[in-house]
Amino acid sequence: MTNLKEFMALEMPKIEEVMLDLVEKIQAPAILKEAMSYSLKAGGKRVRPLFVLAVLDHFGKNHANGYVVGSAVEMIHTYSLIHDDLPSMDNDDYRRGKLTNHKVYGEAYATLAGDALNTLPFGIIARMTDLTAEQKVTLIELLSVAAGAEGMVGGQVLDIDGETRQLTLDELVNVHVNKTGAILRFSIESGAVLAGASDEERAILRDYAYHIGLAFQIKDDILDIEGTTEELGKTAGKDVASDKSTYPALLTLDGAKEKLDIHYKGALTALGKLPSDSTLLEELATYIVKRNK
Amino acid sequence: MTNLKEFMALEMPKIEEVMLDLVEKIQAPAILKEAMSYSLKAGGKRVRPLFVLAVLDHFGKNHANGYVVGSAVEMIHTYSLIHDDLPSMDNDDYRRGKLTNHKVYGEAYATLAGDALNTLPFGIIARMTDLTAEQKVTLIELLSVAAGAEGMVGGQVLDIDGETRQLTLDELVNVHVNKTGAILRFSIESGAVLAGASDEERAILRDYAYHIGLAFQIKDDILDIEGTTEELGKTAGKDVASDKSTYPALLTLDGAKEKLDIHYKGALTALGKLPSDSTLLEELATYIVKRNK
Repeated sequence: MTNLKEFMALEMPKIEEVMLDLVEKIQAPAILKEAMSYSLKAGGKRVRPLFVLAVLDHFGKNHANGYVVGSAVEMIHTYSLIHDDLPSMDNDDYRRGKLTNHKVYGEAYATLAGDALNTLPFGIIARMTDLTAEQKVTLIELLSVAAGAEGMVGGQVLDIDGETRQLTLDELVNVHVNKTGAILRFSIESGAVLAGASDEERAILRDYAYHIGLAFQIKDDILDIEGTTEELGKTAGKDVASDKSTYPALLTLDGAKEKLDIHYKGALTALGKLPSDSTLLEELATYIVKRNK
Repeated sequence: MTNLKEFMALEMPKIEEVMLDLVEKIQAPAILKEAMSYSLKAGGKRVRPLFVLAVLDHFGKNHANGYVVGSAVEMIHTYSLIHDDLPSMDNDDYRRGKLTNHKVYGEAYATLAGDALNTLPFGIIARMTDLTAEQKVTLIELLSVAAGAEGMVGGQVLDIDGETRQLTLDELVNVHVNKTGAILRFSIESGAVLAGASDEERAILRDYAYHIGLAFQIKDDILDIEGTTEELGKTAGKDVASDKSTYPALLTLDGAKEKLDIHYKGALTALGKLPSDSTLLEELATYIVKRNK
């Protein structure tokens, strides 16, 4: 996977630079900007921006707009983590091996830093200079649906519901299509919008994104069992301890691994329908299912 | 104020109908939609949508787009109240005489309902059918700035800062220009964008909005002292009890009333510069400074 490794080594610092600069240049109280940046800097795999860029790359387009839209989507993802870690939600003290936002800045500022990171991405897209107004409106509409009640937030509500009762497999799929899948789908589809892809190509990439989203979550569930707290940078074994509805809980660990393979192959099959070489997107799919954190 | 009374009686039910319909028709978990609607239905003065409509009315434009943009801005306002009422923030059990969102739905769902109401407005504006893409992008950019770190959320951070130390008058003005003022300014300016007002008219209305925003907050501070818990639908006397930086605390009650009058007159002076009759906008200014809740 030399190709992907080089791509990540090259692009991750650029994504972070653009993203932190977008926060740095807003006119806002220093402590708020600090709290926002703290969680944005906290690392993570930057999977979502990498998908935006990989799609642009697939279509042979300049990456510049991808850093901006990738930053926007990483901000949405980061706000959801800040709120998810709050005592009233998952009550996590550590995330990616660092103290969570509210452990450093207190709950009030953490709530507000999350709120600000929810709002800012829409302004960032609206202010982009190298897009038509129509492209911006399309991206904003897709992001609002993916991030809000109809996507990620709705999925989180279903997920909380699943902590108090055993979900069916269909319900579990519905949780993850929304909770994790919607924002990954936006990442992939926004790359297609930026690249001016055809409707057919967009549909193929949505299919790819569907499988990627589920594979991502199934892998997370498996890592919660097979990974270590040290590797993950968050407490391993939490799902089992809390009797949460997960793929391994519903299907056994082997059953979950089979499902993971099905969605991995589904993602590759979708890519096979694209006219041009899709090595990078294939490698990203492989990375998602083979990662150990 | 017959004119304004009739206007409010006519428009408030329409705003509520459009707003609740915009939530009702999204595809999301029923409990999430219920929690979102609960706080949207909790009443309030609907001042922000009324300003959108009053500006459209001033320019003789159809109100249809105003209901949608007014709903968007009321959603942002409502999300901020839901988060503000959380135990980690103001810890309020009642708002407008009704139980606060987290007292009914729990803190996790209240946080998520607020998040969803922060995200949805951008999608609502992006989906409007009767605007150019350029108008939508302008509205979305203005709303993102007004609602986020550079506006309302930034103001809330400054406001929390003011609970632990005595602010200067300049700092207090800065809190309120952002915390309350930014969203009121958006309400007024968005009406101008929808109406296709000239740059000069927009600048006059921004000046009007500046004075309205400060008058609104000073009046709130005065009502916290002079109003009753029953009238206000929230606990009166909280600011004094918590030794909060307010206009009366910095300027005495009489000094605060003088400031209120200055901004009231400032708002009317701005309106005097508009070419056509601005009775409704004048009456709204009067309503802001004379209200008893």
